[in-house]
Amino acid sequence: MKTTFIFFLCCIFWASSSQAQPVPLKWEPVAPGIWKATIGQPDKVDLLGTAGGSPRQEALQKLGERTFPLQPAGCNAEIRDGKVYLRFPLQEEEQLFGLGLQFKTVNRRGQVLNLHMDHYGGNDNGRSHAPVPFYVSSKGYGVLVNSARYITVYAGTGVRVNSEHPPKVYDRNKDADWSAQPYSDVVEMLVPATGTEVYVFAGNSPMEAVQRYNLFNGGGALPPKWGLGFTHRMPTLSTADQVKAEAGAFKEHGFPLDFIGLEPGWQTKAYPCSFEWDKTRFPDPAGFVKEMQAKGIRLNLWLNPYLSPASSLYESAKPLSGSHTVWNGLVPDLTMQPAQNLYKQLFKKQHIDIGVSGYKIDEVDGFDDWLWPDVASFPSGTSAEQMRQLYGVMMQRATTAWFREKGVRTYGLVRASNAGASSFPYVIYNDYYNHRDFITAMCNSSFIGVLWTPEVRASKTAEEWLRRMQSACFSPMAMLNAWADGTKPWSFPEVEKQVKDVALLRMQLFPYLYTTFSQYYLEGKPPVRAMNLVEGFSFQQQSEKTALDGTNNPYQLALRADVKDQFMLGDDLLVAPMFAGETERKVILPRGKWYDFYTGEYVGSGDVIIAKPGLDKIPLYVKDGGIIPMIPPVLHTPAPGEQLALELRHYGEAESTSLVYDDDGESYGYEQGKYMQYRVAAKKDKHGKWQGQVVTENKPGLKPAYKDIKWRFMTQEQK
Amino acid sequence: MKTTFIFFLCCIFWASSSQAQPVPLKWEPVAPGIWKATIGQPDKVDLLGTAGGSPRQEALQKLGERTFPLQPAGCNAEIRDGKVYLRFPLQEEEQLFGLGLQFKTVNRRGQVLNLHMDHYGGNDNGRSHAPVPFYVSSKGYGVLVNSARYITVYAGTGVRVNSEHPPKVYDRNKDADWSAQPYSDVVEMLVPATGTEVYVFAGNSPMEAVQRYNLFNGGGALPPKWGLGFTHRMPTLSTADQVKAEAGAFKEHGFPLDFIGLEPGWQTKAYPCSFEWDKTRFPDPAGFVKEMQAKGIRLNLWLNPYLSPASSLYESAKPLSGSHTVWNGLVPDLTMQPAQNLYKQLFKKQHIDIGVSGYKIDEVDGFDDWLWPDVASFPSGTSAEQMRQLYGVMMQRATTAWFREKGVRTYGLVRASNAGASSFPYVIYNDYYNHRDFITAMCNSSFIGVLWTPEVRASKTAEEWLRRMQSACFSPMAMLNAWADGTKPWSFPEVEKQVKDVALLRMQLFPYLYTTFSQYYLEGKPPVRAMNLVEGFSFQQQSEKTALDGTNNPYQLALRADVKDQFMLGDDLLVAPMFAGETERKVILPRGKWYDFYTGEYVGSGDVIIAKPGLDKIPLYVKDGGIIPMIPPVLHTPAPGEQLALELRHYGEAESTSLVYDDDGESYGYEQGKYMQYRVAAKKDKHGKWQGQVVTENKPGLKPAYKDIKWRFMTQEQK
Repeated sequence: MKTTFIFFLCCIFWASSSQAQPVPLKWEPVAPGIWKATIGQPDKVDLLGTAGGSPRQEALQKLGERTFPLQPAGCNAEIRDGKVYLRFPLQEEEQLFGLGLQFKTVNRRGQVLNLHMDHYGGNDNGRSHAPVPFYVSSKGYGVLVNSARYITVYAGTGVRVNSEHPPKVYDRNKDADWSAQPYSDVVEMLVPATGTEVYVFAGNSPMEAVQRYNLFNGGGALPPKWGLGFTHRMPTLSTADQVKAEAGAFKEHGFPLDFIGLEPGWQTKAYPCSFEWDKTRFPDPAGFVKEMQAKGIRLNLWLNPYLSPASSLYESAKPLSGSHTVWNGLVPDLTMQPAQNLYKQLFKKQHIDIGVSGYKIDEVDGFDDWLWPDVASFPSGTSAEQMRQLYGVMMQRATTAWFREKGVRTYGLVRASNAGASSFPYVIYNDYYNHRDFITAMCNSSFIGVLWTPEVRASKTAEEWLRRMQSACFSPMAMLNAWADGTKPWSFPEVEKQVKDVALLRMQLFPYLYTTFSQYYLEGKPPVRAMNLVEGFSFQQQSEKTALDGTNNPYQLALRADVKDQFMLGDDLLVAPMFAGETERKVILPRGKWYDFYTGEYVGSGDVIIAKPGLDKIPLYVKDGGIIPMIPPVLHTPAPGEQLALELRHYGEAESTSLVYDDDGESYGYEQGKYMQYRVAAKKDKHGKWQGQVVTENKPGLKPAYKDIKWRFMTQEQK
Repeated sequence: MKTTFIFFLCCIFWASSSQAQPVPLKWEPVAPGIWKATIGQPDKVDLLGTAGGSPRQEALQKLGERTFPLQPAGCNAEIRDGKVYLRFPLQEEEQLFGLGLQFKTVNRRGQVLNLHMDHYGGNDNGRSHAPVPFYVSSKGYGVLVNSARYITVYAGTGVRVNSEHPPKVYDRNKDADWSAQPYSDVVEMLVPATGTEVYVFAGNSPMEAVQRYNLFNGGGALPPKWGLGFTHRMPTLSTADQVKAEAGAFKEHGFPLDFIGLEPGWQTKAYPCSFEWDKTRFPDPAGFVKEMQAKGIRLNLWLNPYLSPASSLYESAKPLSGSHTVWNGLVPDLTMQPAQNLYKQLFKKQHIDIGVSGYKIDEVDGFDDWLWPDVASFPSGTSAEQMRQLYGVMMQRATTAWFREKGVRTYGLVRASNAGASSFPYVIYNDYYNHRDFITAMCNSSFIGVLWTPEVRASKTAEEWLRRMQSACFSPMAMLNAWADGTKPWSFPEVEKQVKDVALLRMQLFPYLYTTFSQYYLEGKPPVRAMNLVEGFSFQQQSEKTALDGTNNPYQLALRADVKDQFMLGDDLLVAPMFAGETERKVILPRGKWYDFYTGEYVGSGDVIIAKPGLDKIPLYVKDGGIIPMIPPVLHTPAPGEQLALELRHYGEAESTSLVYDDDGESYGYEQGKYMQYRVAAKKDKHGKWQGQVVTENKPGLKPAYKDIKWRFMTQEQK
């Protein structure tokens, strides 16, 4: 009788929920400035649970408490027809960012997105390598839906009959102000699941909301030092000897190189994979890895996670795998520990134990017509849809953990990520190859806790080659990917010098880059930052009228301007990439004075300026008081224990202080406080002369990384 | 206790169904050669029920019984997680057609489609103006999923671990035959609903399966005679006087015109609509309509079905409408009779009763960001998704019925259709404007029971203008749509004569066209036919290897050739449109001898020929024995009771018989048998001289439409 009574209750619940009206969400605080609401019966498998990050409580405490940033009465949910419908209010001037790694636009307000793991297909429709269901508002808060489903987001597009802030009614026949997309005062979302968790992140700025989001998920990844050097990927069928020769050629050309990537041919089988070395090309993998490392060069191995029928693991993996294959390969159900263990054993033995430093995890995003279909089933009961949304995250988490067990950090590449994955040391890449859109992706990566690299593969002209290389050197991973084309950094001799210059500049900027990444871990601040995350940057997005064209523009769609071709790298450096065919470009400067990185000259303040850098340079600007720590132009990032001279470049008129981060560069000691921060300060003395101060933090067991610290007052030198 | 027991059973059922394995579908015959299976608990609202067609039993009987065309054991279904998963077998050489009005490809095998009502966005991904979940196999059968949900179809793409016909395993590193898409032996479908019906249609050819499909849905639409003339759409804000002047100009230029379309400005409000005449532009609508009709010109009214806040119906429509607006307009829930009645009253009074002849139903397809969102709810409980899939069909059904009540046929335009709608006299159009892809859409329309027009709007050059006009004149609706550009047929004076020639040729071909459409109604044969529906047409689709390109083709995707730029119009006429910039083209001829339409000359047999038609002509070919009935080059299609001279053109060497259809041209009498068919036969007498015979069927109350019937033996004349 008791059992039937429970059934009875279930049915009552079901009946009432199916006719439910939207009800306000019930928020419970889960960390300072972070709240959670639960609707219905959430799936067993979700985004944050799969990523498994632990909130960085101390850092969150430091950010402090905030009041709930939205009108609670406007945050509603409804369960209808077995699906969750969510509604969040929007104010009039609000802009929205995030919602996946899109490539063409930054502001999401007015867009409809179906957040679906996929390769980027040329439209900002939600299909993306990182379909993260998290948005950040220009009002300084963020909303995350913690569901691994294909969520549809109406980011200020639907207009309800009973809207509290209805749009003005225009008649298209007579009113020039008629718009195909009337004003909407809500974000609405459809989560095709019986329940979900939702999180709200407060902030006094969009950046603070993003920080809370990242810190809640465990903070951002801190790469090993070598990860911030230059990396090159070999042509597919390269042999060990060819790899050694390539490394030699880099040295000969005086070109920096920290790690080399091996593409499919290192394995006996690829597409799908055996994960085992092909002895015809790599007769002595362990020796080879050791020899390379002795030259200061780490190895990264390409793979897709689908198991070849030729693998000795095949039969044991079969019952642990999905119903469908990818290129005839098994798709292990990585939500199950035994499936992970199979790979762990193999990967450790074949790669990690012999000193391989990282992976390039390919083919975990799409395409629909070769990945497992949504009709596939998996032994754990996890749906094909959830597996699609999560596979890249599961691979990141598993591989990161295997390296961690060895006590070393890794830094790799992945084609798919999702919410909660900011702490994984993986950079997203893809096959799409539009330089301008690559920069927009850099901007968008900063809202959603992922990293993105605008890798260089090939170019039509020397100019394009150089411009792409300049961008790559100011990204989370400076990479030349020659897997198909066999290009080298010096493939265009007419720009070889300039390409080398910018690669060496990246090496010089290592202390700045490493410090910037430390902020990702310590404070949740992304290393690359869209301008919309920058304090003092105000860009009121404007819609521009267009002309009616019966063929090309029948609805007279308004054009919206986005700032998507410039970004901040860390706190002080504004990067404004040049694109092939351009000799000048507009740069929008945030409030405050700004200075040319190369010369220290004043360039403007809160203005739109025109940069004409010539072919040699990528425009870089430093904000007033910025202090940029630099080392000499080395070919490898600092090895553990290595000490290098440090130059501290101060820009502008403002007195300032700054931190320069350092640690051992490869272990996880920094998580236990084993790191140091140089406290550097630039001040004018009573005679108006600039003085620099450096206070080195003393941490037991840590050797200072820098010696011969010198100051340069760049703007002062101009005078 | 009884109630709790039922709950108990429900829960058992739920628990067992959620763990279900695929089970073979249970087929019940529903008409000769047609079977149905029901899986789970289908939605209350579905595709066929909404279209409401009655099977044409007699015609189906005539096609006869067939055996079930698939391996029954291979047709499986499974319910998991509240969704239906379907699986159908595929043989090795099988090609698949249908699955929506796509624009770039014809063979669907190897594609993944999410059948989602939308404007066509440039990719054959399932988003389409007619996302019909029906596929036809080259083996001569069809499968329909009768669900108004966003169905995902894996048309021979997914490969199961336990596949009975697994693909060969290749290693991408070494095997040149590695393919990004391995062979798959199944169609799999995901229907996001708790149940669905599935239908299978047998045939001894793809055409016969299509015929059964169309006949089961009530047969194809037979337009009124005037529908097959030329139509022109006015610029948006035209006045009654301007419309009259335009009609006058057509007459002056000797250009045919049967009906004129009025665009948004005929109404007081558009986007959203009032559906009421704007008296400033049309002071006397009834008089105007009458005056135009006296000139032999019918009127078609543009609308979108969203109700303006300015409408007097607004308050009464509000409780009958969805939760969300479209351009501030209400979206009436047309699954509810009271909502339909509101519109019926208004439409009858304002339009139908005063003699308006048809509608152009716009904006019922997409875009996502201005149609009601999927989070919207409707008072009937029908989901937003279902409404999206069905709205165009509901508007077609309702308006067709209102004209039927008056006893007259209509012929109009619609931007959205779906399965089961073949009997509605509506032609799909859109904003996409690629001439070549428009022809591919013509091909694809023939598999799924819809009509499509490659309308002409504007062109960059006179050549393009002429080539587009030539195509439009061999389509279900010969239309110039000048709503935005104000173009006229003679807008390019250098090709005015050629444009007029082809428009008049369409008029001459009226008896052939009308007969062709009668086959759509009587036999279910579509008027426009993809080559793959033509007997004796064999084209083995081949995949062509491509070169690896790290940037543009990293997966070395195979190119597949499709025949998608030529089609049959009716039984005898092969149309091979020319595209701007081309002076010649390949034409693939089906088996048998083929002859040039214009000259009667033999051109080839089962060959690939090269057509070099010059600018004046669109290549047209007639098959051996084809008899093409033609009238003089008139400016209007025949009025009721009008008698015209008839020329019967025979082509080739084969003796043959044919039918020429006629009826009153405007009523529904033909449904009660009030039509006649001229039985025409071409034979050689004993001296080898060609003789033509005509037997006129005598039907009480029907006056023969043709007089002075003359034969021309076109090929004979050549000798």
